[in-house]
Amino acid sequence: MKKDFITVQDFTKQELMEMIDLSLALKQAINSGYFPPLMKDLTLGMIFQQSSTRTRVSFETAMQQLGGHAQYLGPGMIQLGDHETIEDTGKVLSRLVDILMARVIEHQTVIDLGASASVPVINGMSDKTHPTQAIADVITMIEHLPDGKKLQDCKVVFTGDGTQVCVSLAFICTRLGMHFVQYGPVTHHMNDEVQAILDANVKEYGGSWELSDDRNSVRGADFFYTDVWYGLYESELPKEERVRIFQEYQINRELMQLGSLGAKFMHCLPATRGEDVTDEVIDSPVSICWDQAGNRLTAMRGLLVYFNRNRQAHSDLEISAAKEALDNKMAKIFNL
Amino acid sequence: MKKDFITVQDFTKQELMEMIDLSLALKQAINSGYFPPLMKDLTLGMIFQQSSTRTRVSFETAMQQLGGHAQYLGPGMIQLGDHETIEDTGKVLSRLVDILMARVIEHQTVIDLGASASVPVINGMSDKTHPTQAIADVITMIEHLPDGKKLQDCKVVFTGDGTQVCVSLAFICTRLGMHFVQYGPVTHHMNDEVQAILDANVKEYGGSWELSDDRNSVRGADFFYTDVWYGLYESELPKEERVRIFQEYQINRELMQLGSLGAKFMHCLPATRGEDVTDEVIDSPVSICWDQAGNRLTAMRGLLVYFNRNRQAHSDLEISAAKEALDNKMAKIFNL
Amino acid sequence: MKKDFITVQDFTKQELMEMIDLSLALKQAINSGYFPPLMKDLTLGMIFQQSSTRTRVSFETAMQQLGGHAQYLGPGMIQLGDHETIEDTGKVLSRLVDILMARVIEHQTVIDLGASASVPVINGMSDKTHPTQAIADVITMIEHLPDGKKLQDCKVVFTGDGTQVCVSLAFICTRLGMHFVQYGPVTHHMNDEVQAILDANVKEYGGSWELSDDRNSVRGADFFYTDVWYGLYESELPKEERVRIFQEYQINRELMQLGSLGAKFMHCLPATRGEDVTDEVIDSPVSICWDQAGNRLTAMRGLLVYFNRNRQAHSDLEISAAKEALDNKMAKIFNL
Repeated sequence: MKKDFITVQDFTKQELMEMIDLSLALKQAINSGYFPPLMKDLTLGMIFQQSSTRTRVSFETAMQQLGGHAQYLGPGMIQLGDHETIEDTGKVLSRLVDILMARVIEHQTVIDLGASASVPVINGMSDKTHPTQAIADVITMIEHLPDGKKLQDCKVVFTGDGTQVCVSLAFICTRLGMHFVQYGPVTHHMNDEVQAILDANVKEYGGSWELSDDRNSVRGADFFYTDVWYGLYESELPKEERVRIFQEYQINRELMQLGSLGAKFMHCLPATRGEDVTDEVIDSPVSICWDQAGNRLTAMRGLLVYFNRNRQAHSDLEISAAKEALDNKMAKIFNL
Repeated sequence: MKKDFITVQDFTKQELMEMIDLSLALKQAINSGYFPPLMKDLTLGMIFQQSSTRTRVSFETAMQQLGGHAQYLGPGMIQLGDHETIEDTGKVLSRLVDILMARVIEHQTVIDLGASASVPVINGMSDKTHPTQAIADVITMIEHLPDGKKLQDCKVVFTGDGTQVCVSLAFICTRLGMHFVQYGPVTHHMNDEVQAILDANVKEYGGSWELSDDRNSVRGADFFYTDVWYGLYESELPKEERVRIFQEYQINRELMQLGSLGAKFMHCLPATRGEDVTDEVIDSPVSICWDQAGNRLTAMRGLLVYFNRNRQAHSDLEISAAKEALDNKMAKIFNL
Repeated sequence: MKKDFITVQDFTKQELMEMIDLSLALKQAINSGYFPPLMKDLTLGMIFQQSSTRTRVSFETAMQQLGGHAQYLGPGMIQLGDHETIEDTGKVLSRLVDILMARVIEHQTVIDLGASASVPVINGMSDKTHPTQAIADVITMIEHLPDGKKLQDCKVVFTGDGTQVCVSLAFICTRLGMHFVQYGPVTHHMNDEVQAILDANVKEYGGSWELSDDRNSVRGADFFYTDVWYGLYESELPKEERVRIFQEYQINRELMQLGSLGAKFMHCLPATRGEDVTDEVIDSPVSICWDQAGNRLTAMRGLLVYFNRNRQAHSDLEISAAKEALDNKMAKIFNL
C-alpha cells in the first residue's frame, strides 16, 4: 500500500512525470494565493543525520503551506541507529507521525527505515542518491526549456565529481529520455553499477549518457550543472588535492561558451565561489540556481502530496459521528 | 486554578481514569478522521534537558493534531538553570507559551518549574518518575485486557532495575487497584520512600505490591514489562557489571511462560535486543510494545486537553467585538 | 518594496509608534480570544547564531498565534556564513520562507542578510543593537506610565554597561522625545558614533540624553533598567574584574529610592540576582520585568504583521480559480 521514495529508479517515466506535474500544479495554485490543505492535521518526521539548509527548510515550509507540520529530528536529537536499531525506530515513528523523510550518512539506513516503517519514507539524501534534488532539477529545466525544445531534446552536462547529486540527475535524465554527460576526471566518473543502470535506462526510455574527461563532450549543452569539490565524504583526499584534480572542470565563462546559445547554469548549492563556479557565471542572467533552490520547495510539496495519496479517507458522515461521540464523552468526563 | 502533572500520586483513581478515558476518546475520534481543535492557537513549550525520541515526537504530533503547536527547547537551546534560575525561567515562559512540559535531569527541577509557572507543567520524565509513560502503559493494558478480566484483576510484573519507569508504573497500578511485582535483584529494588507510598496506595485502593528476586513471583503475570539495563544514570556501575547483575531477569521465552496464558510483553523502549529482551519475545505476537509506543501519542493528547481545560473561555460576542476593534485599528494605522 | 527592521534608527517616530500601536491592538485582540490569521500559510525562518530564550520563544509563539509557522534554524543547523556566503543564504532562503529573523554575532551579518534577501529581515539582536527589545520596552512603559505623564515626560535610566540593549533603548527613547540617561562607568559609556546619533535624534524629536557616572544623574527616573554585567562578548575582561567595575551601579533599594515616587524596574533578562539587581527589587511590585518579557511576544506579533504588510494580495476570484485549476489537474494526475 504505502510507497517510499528512496531513488528515482524505483519509478517509471510516467510516475516521475506525475510527481513533476503535480509539483508544478501545486506551485501555480500557491503562487495564485490558494494553499491547498492536503496535509492538514498531518505530521512529517524529518530525520537528519547531517545538517542541511535547503532540504530541511523546504520540507518544513512545504508542510506548513499544505496545512500540516514538520518535526525537525536533527543530529543527536533522537536515538536512531545508536541506542535503538533503525528497524525499531521505523516501527515506533510510524505510530507517531504520518510520513517520514531522512537525510542519512549511509544509503542502507534509509532503505532499512523504509522497510520497517509503515508510513511513506522519503530519502532526503544519502551517500548514493539525492532524489528530491533530481525532481527539483527537472522542474527547473522545464521552467527554463530552450525555445522549441522538449525535455528529451535537452543535453545536461554535470561537471566534476560523480557525487550522489550527479548520480540522481543521471538517473532522472535518462529515465526521461534526455541526454546526460558527466564531464570530469576519469578517476571520479560514476561507477560501474551506476553505468549499468544508465544503460538499462536508455534502452527503455531512449536518450543517451556519456562519461568523459574531454572538453568537447560539453559542446551543445543546454544545462551545465556542478557541485562542490570537497567536504562531501568522511575520508576523502585533502582539500588541496581535490582542488587540483577538479580545477579544470570549473564552470566559468569559457566552459559555458562551449554550450548551446542560451545555455543555463545550475548548482545544487551551496557553491564555493571561485572554485566550482566563478562569480561571473553564478551571478549572471544564465544562472538559474536560485530558481532551482526555490524549486526544492516546489518538489517537496509535490512529493509529500504524491506519497501521502494512499492515506485512508474518512467520509463526512464518519467524521461528524466521531465529533458527536467525542463531544458526548467529554461532556461526561468534565461533568458539563 | 492551574494544575501540574508532576507525578500520578498527585491524582485520585477517578482523576487518573478521567485522563485515560479522555485519551481513549480522543484516539477514537482521530482514528475516525475527526481532529478536534482543542489546542487551537495554543503553544506548548517543550523543555528537554536530555534528548528523547518518543516523548518529544508524541508531544509535538499531539499538539499539531489538536490544532496547536509545540516548540522544541532542547539541551543548550535555552538558559534554564544555567544563566537563569528555574524560577525566573518559569515566570518568563508562562508569559510566552500556554502550557509547558519538561524532561529534566533532577526531579526537583520540574517541581520548581511547576511552582513558578502560572501555566500547567507536565513532567516528561525525571530521575524519579515518568508519569506520561504510566498513562500510556495503562491505556495499552486496557486495549489488551485478558479475556474476562478487568484492570484490577491484572498482575503486572516489571523485571530488572527499579527505575523511574518502574516507580511510575507501580504508582499507577496500585492507585488503580491492580497487582504489581518488581522482579529484580534486591540491591535494585524500589526504595523505602516508594514502598511507603505503595503501602498507602493499596490501603486506599485495594490491589497489591511485591518486591522479589524469586522467579516464582512472576507466576500468573498478565503483563511483563522491562527497561534497559544501563545508560540510565550519570554515575552508575560499569555496563559489564550491570549486565551481570540483571541478566537473569532478561525477558525471554522461559520467563514469559511462567506468566498467565496469553501474557503480553511491554517495554518503554528503546530496547537493547539480546539483553533486556530477546528478539524472539519482542518480535512475537505477544509483544505489545509497539502499540504502547503509539499510545505515548494517545496519552499526550489526553493529558494536554485535560490540563488545559481550565483555560479562560471567551464568548463569541467578545471575540467578534475584538475582531472588529482590531480591524478598525489596523485600517487606521495602515491608512486603509 | 520590502523593508527590514535592522535598527530603530531606520524609522521615524510615527513609524515606530505605528509598530507599537499595532502591537498593542493585536495584544488586546488575542487577550479577548480573537487570534487574527494575519500570517496564515506563512513561514518565518529564524536564524540563531547564538542560543536564545525570549527572542526565539516569542517569535515562534507569535507566528503560531497569527496562523503561521516559525522554523528554528539554530547554531550549526544551517550553513550561513560558513559553507555558504551570507548573500547566497539570503537569496536561497528568500525562495523558501516568507520572512526572516536573525540573531547574529556581528551586526554586519544582519545588514548583509537584509541586502541580499528579497523578503523582510528582522534583527533579533546583534552586537550593536536589539531593536525588537526596544519596541517591547516602550510597550511596557506605555502600559506602566506614571499617572498623568505621557511618554515624552518620562525619564529612563539605564545602569551599567553601554550594551546593545542600552543603545537600542537610547535610540528609541530619543526618537520618541523621551529623556534617557546611561548611568555607568565612563569607560563603558556608549561610544561617539552612538552619541552623534542621539544628538541628531534630540535635535529632531526633542527629549534629552546624558551619560554619567554621577549617582545624582538617576534622580527623578521613572524607569530603571539594567542588563547583566558579563558573558556578553567573546573577549571581555574577566568576570571578577567586570563585577568590580559595575558593582556600584547595581539596582537595589537605595538606587531605586533616588527615582521618582513609583519608579519601575525593568530588565531585558536573564538577570543575575544579587549582582545586577537585588532579589528585593526584582521580586517587588515595582518590578515590571516579567510584563516586559511577556511583551517580547507583544512586540513580535506587531513587527511580523507590520513588516509583512506589503505582501502581494490575491483576490477571492483568483484564489477560487486557482483551487479549481488545481482540483482539475489532480483529478487528471490521479485518474479520479
